[in-house]
Amino acid sequence: MVEEYEVQELLDKLEELINFGDIEDIKEAFSEFPTAHVVDYLLTKSETEIISILNLMEHEVAGRIFSYFNTDKQYDLSKIIDRRTFSDIFTYMYSDARADLFQILSKEEQIELLPFLDKKTREDVIVLSAYPPETAGGIMSTDFATILIHMTCQQALAKIRHDAPSQKMIYYIYVVNDNMEMLGIITIKDLIMSDPKDIVKELYNDHFVYADVNDDREDVAGQIEKHDLVAIPVLNSLKQLVGIVSHEEAIDIIRAEHTEDMEKFMGIVPSIDEQGYLETTTISHFKRRVAWLVILAGVGLISGVIIQYYQGVLEHLIILALYMPMMTATGGNMGSQAATVVIRAIALDQIQDTDWIKILLKELRISFLLSFCVGGLVFLKIVIFSSQPLPQGLSHIYIGSIIGAAIAIQVISSAIIGAGLPLLVRRLGGDPAVAASPAITTTVDITGLLIYFSIASNAISI
Amino acid sequence: MVEEYEVQELLDKLEELINFGDIEDIKEAFSEFPTAHVVDYLLTKSETEIISILNLMEHEVAGRIFSYFNTDKQYDLSKIIDRRTFSDIFTYMYSDARADLFQILSKEEQIELLPFLDKKTREDVIVLSAYPPETAGGIMSTDFATILIHMTCQQALAKIRHDAPSQKMIYYIYVVNDNMEMLGIITIKDLIMSDPKDIVKELYNDHFVYADVNDDREDVAGQIEKHDLVAIPVLNSLKQLVGIVSHEEAIDIIRAEHTEDMEKFMGIVPSIDEQGYLETTTISHFKRRVAWLVILAGVGLISGVIIQYYQGVLEHLIILALYMPMMTATGGNMGSQAATVVIRAIALDQIQDTDWIKILLKELRISFLLSFCVGGLVFLKIVIFSSQPLPQGLSHIYIGSIIGAAIAIQVISSAIIGAGLPLLVRRLGGDPAVAASPAITTTVDITGLLIYFSIASNAISI
Repeated sequence: MVEEYEVQELLDKLEELINFGDIEDIKEAFSEFPTAHVVDYLLTKSETEIISILNLMEHEVAGRIFSYFNTDKQYDLSKIIDRRTFSDIFTYMYSDARADLFQILSKEEQIELLPFLDKKTREDVIVLSAYPPETAGGIMSTDFATILIHMTCQQALAKIRHDAPSQKMIYYIYVVNDNMEMLGIITIKDLIMSDPKDIVKELYNDHFVYADVNDDREDVAGQIEKHDLVAIPVLNSLKQLVGIVSHEEAIDIIRAEHTEDMEKFMGIVPSIDEQGYLETTTISHFKRRVAWLVILAGVGLISGVIIQYYQGVLEHLIILALYMPMMTATGGNMGSQAATVVIRAIALDQIQDTDWIKILLKELRISFLLSFCVGGLVFLKIVIFSSQPLPQGLSHIYIGSIIGAAIAIQVISSAIIGAGLPLLVRRLGGDPAVAASPAITTTVDITGLLIYFSIASNAISI
Repeated sequence: MVEEYEVQELLDKLEELINFGDIEDIKEAFSEFPTAHVVDYLLTKSETEIISILNLMEHEVAGRIFSYFNTDKQYDLSKIIDRRTFSDIFTYMYSDARADLFQILSKEEQIELLPFLDKKTREDVIVLSAYPPETAGGIMSTDFATILIHMTCQQALAKIRHDAPSQKMIYYIYVVNDNMEMLGIITIKDLIMSDPKDIVKELYNDHFVYADVNDDREDVAGQIEKHDLVAIPVLNSLKQLVGIVSHEEAIDIIRAEHTEDMEKFMGIVPSIDEQGYLETTTISHFKRRVAWLVILAGVGLISGVIIQYYQGVLEHLIILALYMPMMTATGGNMGSQAATVVIRAIALDQIQDTDWIKILLKELRISFLLSFCVGGLVFLKIVIFSSQPLPQGLSHIYIGSIIGAAIAIQVISSAIIGAGLPLLVRRLGGDPAVAASPAITTTVDITGLLIYFSIASNAISI
């Protein structure tokens, strides 16, 4: 790891240069230090200070650094830079970050900015920001290198040198024809490993993985992951190369997917835009959570109906009420645990549809062992510690066995339900994560109460 | 996307070639088609068929394809290949996959294999497999390119051509001295963009991000993500370059982190090795889940103590029992939702420690709105639908208001507890995800029952 103190040294060095160094040294440091750390440093400064530091840089360096700020910060900074300087920085931003920033400008701000941009940048940003953000088009960048199929390696390298002055990495070189239709890929390594007179046509690989510009971005991330790609080319319906999505996007998409899964699992409707927790309004939060909460509260009223049905038993044996919450809680914990483990196994492709019997049998065995522990604990508590007076003819040992047995069965049935529900949802073609924890806990509450009271009522009438 | 039908075409093409094509065409196809798809195809064949196909390939191609199988599959295949062929494939595997496979061999199998390997491979695999799997050393590969600082660009490119025949990508070139101490980085792009006579010393960047061989692998993934790296160099304590961790590892680590978080959140102890759900034994599953389940069951007995304390109230007003499960369930859902949202916001760096007041106030407002919905629902249910006979002097409207109010307060308090617990854990330096859902639901069960019965008992004595 670049140690904490080494990072701090770096930040201190930058601070020292800003205060005492000459312009050339400052420019060199900001250009060469890892950009993420440069940004860490700049974030300790005020916005006007950030602007004056960026003004010292070459436009290309400033654009690269500016691309690393998050979009909201970029917007705030843009409001205090003069139009001319901002359009220079904007031009040299990474094309995907640039399009994201353009998308959050208001219509007026966009119209204001466009005349300051050169034609190429203007067209690029308009095209990119037109794509829906959930698609490959919405996340792709246009910073890639192309060569023509009839070129020699020497000509190809010359074109790359000419076209690609930016710091953005070049790894795959995309082979296209005169219509920008994508024909294949060659790596920069292959180009330099070959004889300069070799023709690209003999060397390139015409079998390549690509994304369509309308593909869902989670599918694109999946492709990048499956093929271990540094970047995936994006084609339109005419098979023309229009952009690339790089591996770092894949990580961001997977992180967002993770949030969505966890929230879905808790019965929270995923948010459409990607505002952070504090930026999202109270009303938005409310709307995303109310549906499940109210539905499950409604379904929970069913548990009240069950208790009402067994009211006589409860009144006769008030000790049953003492263990009701523990019954439902244990069932909820058990069911959620089983569901979590199964949902993750499905997500990581560890189990097939045909494995469902194996899974349920496994949960049966695991929960059998667990049921002994929990049931035994309750039995001991009732027999040893309970001071609860009991009706005539019933001993603590007897009651303890009944309640202990009921809890044991609850543990087993909750595990089966918790594991089974996601499997069932997937079998029906849905997303297993939707078999959300609240749905499972509510279901096992109901089945748990039924088990509890039917065992108790049968046992007492004996 | 490479469409479903296109992938199927590819697989059909491979099948056709295997059955009818000549050796040269087969070798070319298996070498050029995307490796992940080649593996998809091979996984449709029996293990003996896979071996005979691999035997047709150049060792280098076979090694690359073999690296893409998961480790368990590699092991199964290794048991039916002859030692000589297997050692050839093994030699040409990616060094990190190779070390992973070596680690799961038994001591006897390892001892059996080593004599068949050349010295370089033998040393490499022994060194790599000695590192703990959770560290940078345990996941790194040794497939990287180095050049010396005093070389010209031309000499550097010549060395790269000589050293790096494998398909593994070369993007960063690591600049080292004669002791293999790492001095800096240069990209292959910079090398080709420069004059062949330029010296590396003038061009390379001596500011670079690196990992230490003992660093935790999740920290390594975080560094790769933060700096958008294609690969991160790994150094030992002498600052010698010993390996690299590439971006695709980062994605795997982040996925595993995801599983771990979700399981931690459900009170499941994360597994040390990474076996899939079905491969993990019943006993292992049991051990990972029993602790939390029993602890929370024990804590849940506290709820029984509370009910016992208020037993008189319950006996007097048995209608209270009907809404007890709904009370605890709603509190659990609410608390888990709040905790999920806050834990994710923390994980995505959206909130700082100092934001805790803002977060609790926000949850207060959100839960206030939600409490109206749920409390109102219960009130209406009791007033309109309840056929429960009530003691003298108490109307359904009165009881409905009491229980509705109690549930409303439960919603608000559960949200505060659910949001507050992760924040508190983080403030104390722990991992917020440990403020697990079962802990939260059990806590709000207890606070919920206290709220419920104290309101009810106060209201009736009026």
